[in-house]
Amino acid sequence: MIIENVSSNKVFDGWHKQYTHQSAVLNCNMRFAIYLPPQATNNQKVPVLYWLSGLTCTDENFMQKAGAQRIAAELGVAIVAPDTSPRGEDVADDEGYDLGKGAGFYVNATEAPWSRHYQMYDYIVKELPELIESTFPVNEQRSIAGHSMGGHGALTIAMLNPDRYQSMSAFSPISNPMNCPWGQKAFTAYLGKDKAFWRIHDASELMRQAKRFVPAKVDQGESDDFLTEQLKPEMLEAAAKASGYPLEINLHQGYDHSYYFISSFIEAHLRFHATHLNK
Amino acid sequence: MIIENVSSNKVFDGWHKQYTHQSAVLNCNMRFAIYLPPQATNNQKVPVLYWLSGLTCTDENFMQKAGAQRIAAELGVAIVAPDTSPRGEDVADDEGYDLGKGAGFYVNATEAPWSRHYQMYDYIVKELPELIESTFPVNEQRSIAGHSMGGHGALTIAMLNPDRYQSMSAFSPISNPMNCPWGQKAFTAYLGKDKAFWRIHDASELMRQAKRFVPAKVDQGESDDFLTEQLKPEMLEAAAKASGYPLEINLHQGYDHSYYFISSFIEAHLRFHATHLNK
Repeated sequence: MIIENVSSNKVFDGWHKQYTHQSAVLNCNMRFAIYLPPQATNNQKVPVLYWLSGLTCTDENFMQKAGAQRIAAELGVAIVAPDTSPRGEDVADDEGYDLGKGAGFYVNATEAPWSRHYQMYDYIVKELPELIESTFPVNEQRSIAGHSMGGHGALTIAMLNPDRYQSMSAFSPISNPMNCPWGQKAFTAYLGKDKAFWRIHDASELMRQAKRFVPAKVDQGESDDFLTEQLKPEMLEAAAKASGYPLEINLHQGYDHSYYFISSFIEAHLRFHATHLNK
Repeated sequence: MIIENVSSNKVFDGWHKQYTHQSAVLNCNMRFAIYLPPQATNNQKVPVLYWLSGLTCTDENFMQKAGAQRIAAELGVAIVAPDTSPRGEDVADDEGYDLGKGAGFYVNATEAPWSRHYQMYDYIVKELPELIESTFPVNEQRSIAGHSMGGHGALTIAMLNPDRYQSMSAFSPISNPMNCPWGQKAFTAYLGKDKAFWRIHDASELMRQAKRFVPAKVDQGESDDFLTEQLKPEMLEAAAKASGYPLEINLHQGYDHSYYFISSFIEAHLRFHATHLNK
């Protein structure tokens, strides 16, 4: 697989780099970003945290705004930030910000016109890690985290693949997409009207049924404008109680849905993942 | 003076807020951002670091990308980030990114069509601090820092007002604008062709002639694309040697002109200013 480096910035003694590559799974050209901590340049393979972003984002939001590199450099963890959907002129799109480009929801679409490109689940679970692990000085220890739509993606992908991820975390995740407007719109478009196909991409459903556990941490701002209608962390918490899932969930007074919230608590997430990645 | 709050985000237990106000000096409506650390909400007045941004920036770049709030919250220092030029439909502009809107260069323009609005020096030195100090729980201890064009602004403004600023610092400043294309273009437009009027806005000229000193820290990336043609830190270093100016200047191998560089070293700048602000 050919990948092309399109930018490099030294940051906290490591390197932030953007690459483009032709994705066979998504059938289009994709860009991702990687932060390689200083440890990764010294013939040492480091573990990887995958970060899944929210609606309207690209690979850039987290890398520019979260302030994660300082802690990743200390802990010796690489961070990979993929884009949030397939991209390109021939890729189907929607007028809304919450469907189509920038809104892939980390599922494999089965419905027209989406199914030709929108296979984000396979991209995140298989194709991208294969590319990362064959290209960069990283080992096969993986964790996954995300924000909002990406929090939904991180939790569902880790729970569907408990052998592949050491830990999972989310900021302000869409916790129960089957029962909120964002999730219902996206799942209807990508997966069709039969809700039987929605359940395996609903974090609360998966957590309630879980038999095998991935250590999990969730943070949510109490002044988040999307809290009540779209995010519903109480559904995730209830599901965790029902199955005994090892979920650490914390609410934070005054914090909103923005990267100002993420930047305030990203250090705790990285330290949480590092304890599981470096076992 | 009426100011209007247009956004609020909790971050590291303090508040990032954006405000708009009618500027009498600039003759237009302006937006600025302030970070109020948690100490400022407890009936305690805190000192202020003014951050001047570079070409094309607004109040948002530093607040979103530098990762400064974590340290400001620890140190109890407020940060104010003004815009980089007057704004509005009736404000003169240029096709280039390096003149006009987003490129005020922190001088008082004397030449048409710029002089009607481009009075950024008076805005930064007088009008904005008066507004800040009469509105927020801050004291009159001030420091000033900036990046690129804003590094030029911070150094020149502090050296022209040594009684008003406790310390000054810059990332990748335009160190000798009289002798680089960015500075020559802007100074010719804003100040006219007579170079006698340029000298008081040239950091290297001011530092060479200085009799009174403001503690100064400058950091520069060695892989900065603008280093040789536009920034010329060697001119500043030579000026400091000539006058015995207390300038701490450091070059950093591999770092570029971006906020990835700033984020890597902003903690050292904030700690430097805090030692002078809290005397």
